[in-house]
Amino acid sequence: MAGIDLKGKRVMLTQADTFMGPVLQEVFTELGAEVIGMGGPVNDPEAPASMVSEAGQVDILLAHLAVPAPQTPVTEADDNELAHLFEHMVYPLPRLARAVLPQMIERGSGRILVFGSASALRGMKRTSSYSMARGAQLAWVQAVGVEMARHNVQVNAIAQNFVDNPTYFPQEVQDNPKFQERLKREVPLGRLVSAREDAMFAASLCSDGISCFVGQVFPVCGGWVTR
Amino acid sequence: MAGIDLKGKRVMLTQADTFMGPVLQEVFTELGAEVIGMGGPVNDPEAPASMVSEAGQVDILLAHLAVPAPQTPVTEADDNELAHLFEHMVYPLPRLARAVLPQMIERGSGRILVFGSASALRGMKRTSSYSMARGAQLAWVQAVGVEMARHNVQVNAIAQNFVDNPTYFPQEVQDNPKFQERLKREVPLGRLVSAREDAMFAASLCSDGISCFVGQVFPVCGGWVTR
Amino acid sequence: MAGIDLKGKRVMLTQADTFMGPVLQEVFTELGAEVIGMGGPVNDPEAPASMVSEAGQVDILLAHLAVPAPQTPVTEADDNELAHLFEHMVYPLPRLARAVLPQMIERGSGRILVFGSASALRGMKRTSSYSMARGAQLAWVQAVGVEMARHNVQVNAIAQNFVDNPTYFPQEVQDNPKFQERLKREVPLGRLVSAREDAMFAASLCSDGISCFVGQVFPVCGGWVTR
Amino acid sequence: MAGIDLKGKRVMLTQADTFMGPVLQEVFTELGAEVIGMGGPVNDPEAPASMVSEAGQVDILLAHLAVPAPQTPVTEADDNELAHLFEHMVYPLPRLARAVLPQMIERGSGRILVFGSASALRGMKRTSSYSMARGAQLAWVQAVGVEMARHNVQVNAIAQNFVDNPTYFPQEVQDNPKFQERLKREVPLGRLVSAREDAMFAASLCSDGISCFVGQVFPVCGGWVTR
Repeated sequence: MAGIDLKGKRVMLTQADTFMGPVLQEVFTELGAEVIGMGGPVNDPEAPASMVSEAGQVDILLAHLAVPAPQTPVTEADDNELAHLFEHMVYPLPRLARAVLPQMIERGSGRILVFGSASALRGMKRTSSYSMARGAQLAWVQAVGVEMARHNVQVNAIAQNFVDNPTYFPQEVQDNPKFQERLKREVPLGRLVSAREDAMFAASLCSDGISCFVGQVFPVCGGWVTR
Repeated sequence: MAGIDLKGKRVMLTQADTFMGPVLQEVFTELGAEVIGMGGPVNDPEAPASMVSEAGQVDILLAHLAVPAPQTPVTEADDNELAHLFEHMVYPLPRLARAVLPQMIERGSGRILVFGSASALRGMKRTSSYSMARGAQLAWVQAVGVEMARHNVQVNAIAQNFVDNPTYFPQEVQDNPKFQERLKREVPLGRLVSAREDAMFAASLCSDGISCFVGQVFPVCGGWVTR
Repeated sequence: MAGIDLKGKRVMLTQADTFMGPVLQEVFTELGAEVIGMGGPVNDPEAPASMVSEAGQVDILLAHLAVPAPQTPVTEADDNELAHLFEHMVYPLPRLARAVLPQMIERGSGRILVFGSASALRGMKRTSSYSMARGAQLAWVQAVGVEMARHNVQVNAIAQNFVDNPTYFPQEVQDNPKFQERLKREVPLGRLVSAREDAMFAASLCSDGISCFVGQVFPVCGGWVTR
Repeated sequence: MAGIDLKGKRVMLTQADTFMGPVLQEVFTELGAEVIGMGGPVNDPEAPASMVSEAGQVDILLAHLAVPAPQTPVTEADDNELAHLFEHMVYPLPRLARAVLPQMIERGSGRILVFGSASALRGMKRTSSYSMARGAQLAWVQAVGVEMARHNVQVNAIAQNFVDNPTYFPQEVQDNPKFQERLKREVPLGRLVSAREDAMFAASLCSDGISCFVGQVFPVCGGWVTR
């Protein structure tokens, strides 16, 4: 009856303590899921396998991987910057997939929702490395979504930007009048998307009643991009 | 708590008796909304105003406008075919908007969700006129979404295809083995999207907890297009 | 040898005297084409057939249809406004197609390039009717492109905005400092696209050496949209 | 007069001896450019700087980076596969940019055209790692295009698929009747895009007469994707 039914679902959430982690934990728990939150970064190559092993049955994987975005000009963005972003946001994705997909395929049911970025859909200055990592994520989702569809495993992504969260929009940024002007000018919504809105939309995409999306990328960014 | 909260919402639904109408009525009602279903086509120029007048307060407008898609080759698709599609699917949209937006703007709150078609996002043979009408709808949504955002009125669209419904996929079509083969080949999901999945996703987009989308087009077509 | 080879091509251009018409005539002629420019609007239902009849062999049709964009709020945009835009920019497209495609299909070769608008790809305020008409055009191109591909007839579109031309950006607008600020802010290119750049790109899309695009929409708008 | 004018342009081309390299060298040379072809892979971290140093003035960089696409299921695609693709197709891009952008910025003029893949725009099975690398490229182009626009340096990409070339479509693949059927079924064009068409389109995007694109991605794939 409840629209978004996550009762009894075992949800594994990475980086549960930062970025969108706390609000995802809160909202998915409210909606009846059992959230297995994994703290800390996921850059260790062994981390994904041990996390999944520790979690046991995972019905839904929230692949939530984020680090602060460097703002280096492209003429200065070096291999180290890129390697850091890839180690934290890109390599972990296929590692998580290798760890969690076999049980989902076996059960003939599962979800992976990747928290990506709209910066992969529209260019911005001084985000060259970050966009690379985020673009890698979204293209992966598209491919893996198609590959996993026949197993009834849905792999999709949210491509967010201008969502209220302390990693990308800390209070001191939000209090800056220039930032408020930028919001009005660049974001048709005229405000940040709230963290709960983003989490609620994520939950709807993981609901049993909505199992029809295949490798789809959903912009959540107040209209900054819409396709 | 319920995820998708539509309690007490007054939802006006056009073409309530055909296409996605019955399932939308059912699902939105289950989720607590008061659905005011308007039967029949909306092609009469006066219909939208009298429908809204009859409905009274409309918190959410489900602009659900559909006619069977002609399959005329482009070399034969004539003015009459196009005019018919425009009268039923295109002109009614701004008429509905003129009728319903003033009350939404006054209350500082409202939703319009347009049930459009993914045929406006990806070309198919023998759909030239139909695509025109569907493309008009989606571009309208993008523009009006941006214009209405500052009033806290969200205008968005679902762009569907391969959704199980008797207008576009009647049982005799579904029973055809060639159609089943086409589904496997062209639709990554490997099956039709169920009508309830589509309706549930629509409901989530109309939920109070998710008020952040601006002129956005959501493909719902089993991965046939994903952006 | 010349890269863009249009020698001996018979190019029919509508609205040859306004908007992008003069520069298209100039550039296509420079590149060796024989341009048959048709002046005036194309809204008369009989106009497309008589134009094509008058033109004789048409190797390339430049479907160039434009009227000034109304800036009516959506709450006031009425049927008349929409009908005017449809009569000038939408209905003429299939009429032109019905007139010109038979000879192209018979020769097994032909091009239609539609000059559309990026306003169909990204929402703007007070453009609801105009976006509808422009959205109809682009969706039509996608569908007809796919349908005509097997006849070696390529149907594609340019989706332009912020291109220097007297219809949409008259000198007095360009001289306005506010417009210059808007350009810097909204258009990554930082300037208007020149009319010749647009025409030259159009010519390249019509060149014999590049016959591979099918129902494709090419944004030409200084990066305002990029896909 | 010539439409695509590349006379006197110094064009640096990577992987000149494989994939699209030979045809790019041929076509750009025919159009008057001085092509400095660099053979071999670009995976050595020092290679980009020494290539640019050897090339001297580079007006146009054709960032042409390709390796055969693995077809590993996502459940087996490991770190090594991804690292290999990243080392050959992803890391070289910013290294090339750091090497070549300073001279372009100083001259206030330059082009980088990246030969990317449409596999980053639409999902396919068994391409998870490859899509990641290709998605990283396209997102980078979008960001860097915006960042470099004010220097009159245009950075854009072709996203190709189904282009006739020996790396991705060797003769034995093309001779396979199943491949021919797949072409008819999946590619609206009904044939492979010819290598010369792709190269000619690339040349038009590098022409002095067309300097208006900013971080734009151009699908060249016979209509497999169109935006």
